Amino acid sequence: MTQLTGRDPSLLRRINSAVTLHALRGADALTLTQLMEDTGLSRPTVEGVVEGLTRQGLVAEVDPDAGAPRRGRPARRYRFRAEAGHLLGLEVGVRAVRGVLADLGGTVVGTLRRDVHQETAADERLGAVRALVADLLRRSGVPRGNLRAVGLGTPGIIGADGAVELCAAVPGWTGLDLGARLRRSFRCPVLVENDANLAAIGEHWKGAAVGADSMVFVLAGLSPGAGSLINGRLHRGFGGAAGEIGALHLLGRQADPEHLLSTTDTPLRPLDEQAVAGVLRRAAEGDAEASEALDRFVERLSHDVAALVLAIDPEVVVIGGWATGLDGLLEPLRARLAGHCLRAPRVALTELGEEAVALGALRTALDHVERELFAVDR
Amino acid sequence: MTQLTGRDPSLLRRINSAVTLHALRGADALTLTQLMEDTGLSRPTVEGVVEGLTRQGLVAEVDPDAGAPRRGRPARRYRFRAEAGHLLGLEVGVRAVRGVLADLGGTVVGTLRRDVHQETAADERLGAVRALVADLLRRSGVPRGNLRAVGLGTPGIIGADGAVELCAAVPGWTGLDLGARLRRSFRCPVLVENDANLAAIGEHWKGAAVGADSMVFVLAGLSPGAGSLINGRLHRGFGGAAGEIGALHLLGRQADPEHLLSTTDTPLRPLDEQAVAGVLRRAAEGDAEASEALDRFVERLSHDVAALVLAIDPEVVVIGGWATGLDGLLEPLRARLAGHCLRAPRVALTELGEEAVALGALRTALDHVERELFAVDR
Repeated sequence: MTQLTGRDPSLLRRINSAVTLHALRGADALTLTQLMEDTGLSRPTVEGVVEGLTRQGLVAEVDPDAGAPRRGRPARRYRFRAEAGHLLGLEVGVRAVRGVLADLGGTVVGTLRRDVHQETAADERLGAVRALVADLLRRSGVPRGNLRAVGLGTPGIIGADGAVELCAAVPGWTGLDLGARLRRSFRCPVLVENDANLAAIGEHWKGAAVGADSMVFVLAGLSPGAGSLINGRLHRGFGGAAGEIGALHLLGRQADPEHLLSTTDTPLRPLDEQAVAGVLRRAAEGDAEASEALDRFVERLSHDVAALVLAIDPEVVVIGGWATGLDGLLEPLRARLAGHCLRAPRVALTELGEEAVALGALRTALDHVERELFAVDR
Repeated sequence: MTQLTGRDPSLLRRINSAVTLHALRGADALTLTQLMEDTGLSRPTVEGVVEGLTRQGLVAEVDPDAGAPRRGRPARRYRFRAEAGHLLGLEVGVRAVRGVLADLGGTVVGTLRRDVHQETAADERLGAVRALVADLLRRSGVPRGNLRAVGLGTPGIIGADGAVELCAAVPGWTGLDLGARLRRSFRCPVLVENDANLAAIGEHWKGAAVGADSMVFVLAGLSPGAGSLINGRLHRGFGGAAGEIGALHLLGRQADPEHLLSTTDTPLRPLDEQAVAGVLRRAAEGDAEASEALDRFVERLSHDVAALVLAIDPEVVVIGGWATGLDGLLEPLRARLAGHCLRAPRVALTELGEEAVALGALRTALDHVERELFAVDR
């Protein structure tokens, strides 16, 4: 590895510390000699770094009695203390709030979901989030002070500061400084992001788009939204509005899903996962009107997805959102995209289902902490 | 600046050389003392680097008699020899081929355009390109051997190797290994790219999108194409097909411009810049049928542009292509986008006009050479 001459001793210490921590995190436990080999650092440097990381609580010596008995004195072994901090991924949706709690190694230690009413006002919705967090921490036995970062996903256009600039789906959300409101409840950074953007990050982390650095996640719902990764990084757009394709139907002959999926002249309300699954089931059973309704809905969805695919040309499109029963949408969507796009992408169903947004929020929180722990650039 | 310890002396020499060249290129002429100040390098190092660069022909001593007479012996001054190499930017379009020639400093020293027929076959079209290049070099007095890189833009989906994967607009283009065919005519690298992608690079370099690192260029034409920069870098898409929004109208009620812009039942053929300008002029003069035709066309264009804007959320959209007379399109397009997009971007008309693609091709060739000359990473 590159050795830098020490014009900035504190920077050098940070680099050595990050490199050592990185090596420890990638293994169960390592001796000082193994750490020297992995990092290229000298024994006195490794000893000093391990001592400092131990003081910070990030590294611990492994109990020497844990291994099998050996001749002579066994070499000391050290491990990364994943339990030294926790991350929280939250989703504040239209009809539910959800939380995922994990340790510094990214291992999930608790999840929780609470229903909220579609019409719930902003203050009450925030109250539901706070109650959910308190409950999740208590059930998982994690003290609030142990949280290192919180990620949160919600519908709408989110400013760089975490304020909701525009959101039609959640009452009272537009103009709410969500980041500032939530930061009162935590002593660690709170990162707010659009829900579809976080779902894209989630599916790329451990879902249907692992290894695909160019991907689009489509959150099928009343008004479809999308998040995309370009070169493995979230593409927010200049004003944080990238992927808000829901407005596209205003320009064409497409209408809203409540009418499209209805088999009568009356719009289907409330149109939620259950209602969508009902139409799909009836279509699968051969009901002619449900089949027609499904065709109309797939046409609208294909049009929105085609717009994204033609603009961005991703490797993979992951479809999520109305997760229950979406299986039936996949084949007709693939067929339409193959006909309309010059290069049809792989189309996959969400693998994270309803947890995609919260897991993406968790990954964002983890990224934030890892940048602090493992960053070697200033 | 960062000093690296010399575990790789040739890398170190390259870095010092690049840094010195960079300093010289940013000034008219510099003394060794000024170069030491600008680069942070020692006098012996600067002397060695300048000697090496002079041997390579990239640096020359400025004639000491050029300045005003001074007491004592004046310090030697050195300059970057922009004339040490040349770059060529080419566009192979449906109805014309075009070339722009510049020196290593990016200063244009010659341009040339030749009409070709829409139906011209691939071999004949390539012949027209070769003839144009020979003529342009001759008129500019630049020997072919002085070319360091060639950039070329053409319609269609272009593979990473420079082959045309798909192109409906140019006869015989689909499947043609354009890069390989052209490399026979040059002893320097030939870089082939989609025309709209290069126009985006051109407008960002010296057109309507200077300073906007998130921008989309829309090449309005028979089938609109687009190129986009994200974080200042060209976004090609996973398969090089990003921005090919022309296919979008197949999904909606939109039709092709030849019908949309016609004021009769007969499609407008050939639909070129002149024909489009004619419809715009008649609409401006109050002709009702021309106004209706224009409305239909703007609706289709807005729909395609809205799809791009909703997917990517750029800071600026630059409209080019059918450049003559496009002025009349801008205001109605702005109005429609403002109504349909959650965050409307700035919409600007091309500032490079018909030269956008060739100038983008030139910039790409210049980037290639600069990476070689100024790169400090391996």
